[in-house]
Amino acid sequence: MKRFQELSHAFLKYFDTAHFPDQPSGLYDAASYMLGAGGKRIRPVLCLMGNELFANIHADAWKTATAIELFHNFTLIHDDIMDKAPLRRGNATVHAKFNESSALLAGDVMLLRAYGYLNTTESHHVQMLISQMNEVGRQVCEGQQMDMDFENRESVPLISYLQMIELKTAVLLAASLRMGAFIAGAGEDDQRNLYAFGKNLGLAFQVQDDWLDAFGDPEKFGKKTGGDIIQNKKTFLLLKALETADASQKKDILQLLEYTGADKVDKMLVLFSACGVDKAAQTAQKRYFDQALADLEQIRIPPERKIPLKEMAAYLLQRNA
Amino acid sequence: MKRFQELSHAFLKYFDTAHFPDQPSGLYDAASYMLGAGGKRIRPVLCLMGNELFANIHADAWKTATAIELFHNFTLIHDDIMDKAPLRRGNATVHAKFNESSALLAGDVMLLRAYGYLNTTESHHVQMLISQMNEVGRQVCEGQQMDMDFENRESVPLISYLQMIELKTAVLLAASLRMGAFIAGAGEDDQRNLYAFGKNLGLAFQVQDDWLDAFGDPEKFGKKTGGDIIQNKKTFLLLKALETADASQKKDILQLLEYTGADKVDKMLVLFSACGVDKAAQTAQKRYFDQALADLEQIRIPPERKIPLKEMAAYLLQRNA
Repeated sequence: MKRFQELSHAFLKYFDTAHFPDQPSGLYDAASYMLGAGGKRIRPVLCLMGNELFANIHADAWKTATAIELFHNFTLIHDDIMDKAPLRRGNATVHAKFNESSALLAGDVMLLRAYGYLNTTESHHVQMLISQMNEVGRQVCEGQQMDMDFENRESVPLISYLQMIELKTAVLLAASLRMGAFIAGAGEDDQRNLYAFGKNLGLAFQVQDDWLDAFGDPEKFGKKTGGDIIQNKKTFLLLKALETADASQKKDILQLLEYTGADKVDKMLVLFSACGVDKAAQTAQKRYFDQALADLEQIRIPPERKIPLKEMAAYLLQRNA
Repeated sequence: MKRFQELSHAFLKYFDTAHFPDQPSGLYDAASYMLGAGGKRIRPVLCLMGNELFANIHADAWKTATAIELFHNFTLIHDDIMDKAPLRRGNATVHAKFNESSALLAGDVMLLRAYGYLNTTESHHVQMLISQMNEVGRQVCEGQQMDMDFENRESVPLISYLQMIELKTAVLLAASLRMGAFIAGAGEDDQRNLYAFGKNLGLAFQVQDDWLDAFGDPEKFGKKTGGDIIQNKKTFLLLKALETADASQKKDILQLLEYTGADKVDKMLVLFSACGVDKAAQTAQKRYFDQALADLEQIRIPPERKIPLKEMAAYLLQRNA
């Protein structure tokens, strides 16, 4: 049984290969640039961990992990085009570095390549793996559309936001684990519980991300805080605040959304705290995290095999296991 | 054995079903709009014809035909975004009707859905069909990138242009036929010859398209001619003219590319004829067409079974069979 960091290191080595031909360079340079820009490779490692939870790591788990990472990068390239994002992880996004057309096409070939890897798994695995990839692909697209729709809506219920982050973020973490478990021959109940573990972990992670962007320590968080507030992003915090605020607080929040002064972030944080959404986010995150651990508990496997997943969850959420 | 028109009619009925859920509507309305905008559905019918050439039509041929049509529409949606095209078949393109983000995402879900259909074919078909779809997908993306690259290049060798249209257009026609033949259990040689038939037919069709846009009868062609010349599009005619023109003709052509007067088209047509590219295009088209028929000839099947494909080829190229 290997820990997250060990598998992460092993995957980085495995993944560090040419996934594309050279020509036409306008297309493949864009694709390779994206893959060279790094990232934590969490999803493929989850696939490997889901596999190793039940058995020694199968060759198909490595192929599937590769497909998952390519799929994830396809979504990032296309999302960045849609969001007109200039930067990702401090580097120029693909469309900013090249152009929108090459980025669009690079995303397309990356998705095709992901199916290419899945299609080389053993014949008794292929259909189930592709079916799971199709399902998660549809869900991620739906989540992205909801996210864009929300930007143009005046009010969004918190429950719709949670549904959106489940589709856009959590299901891919969940499906990565389940695909690994499927390859290991895990039973349906165990697969379902592992999927639930991943989904709840993903929700906890996303709520934490919203919290960190507002209340986190910039040094530990690795980026400037307050970005979501400056952009009026509809986060867990803002939506929860709008739902729990009294009439006067709500008026203040809505006014602050129009405000662009340098102290906008500080003023909003005061309001967030006054509405108790600071605590509410931490409570929600803990609830998802605890549910994830309860889901993991249900899996009929000796407890010691679950240690790497517990450690990984604690690591992702910067909590004590 | 059914004729192209009969199978086309049957496919239209089969395809006329809900391929997507309703929500989020911003995503699926865009996808459904594209599919509702019609089109000749040539590629799926080729899949059915490739199947029926060797056997009664198999249920998997219908599924694969559906996947091929969805795949083709995915490429059209994304190509229209890249080309910033306002119209397709006289209707607003998806990104013009909705917006670029929803169009991009609608293309993505359409590609995913295509794999969904392929994945429901019989288990001994799935891997080969997905492998062929992956290959043609990569080729179409490469062709599109080459097409975009050519726009920014001052000169493009005719041979590179032919390679581009092979990738962007011809291989999908070829692969559609071959996937149908594969499902029918055709031998490898027969599959290869049928693929070559489709590829050469596609090349003939594309060269004809270039010719018709310049020299066609607008009434029969169904759209205004001269559009390629007005846009300085690097077509077979222009590239061939630049390769065969003498120094003085070449100077005239290059000057005409800068010219925007109302008689630009007429002037260019005179130059094209003077360089003999009118005839050269017809010769090239006939050569591809004859090669396609020779490829079809090679297939070890009684000649009468090949009649529908011959009729279809003649119909597509408006030639006598």
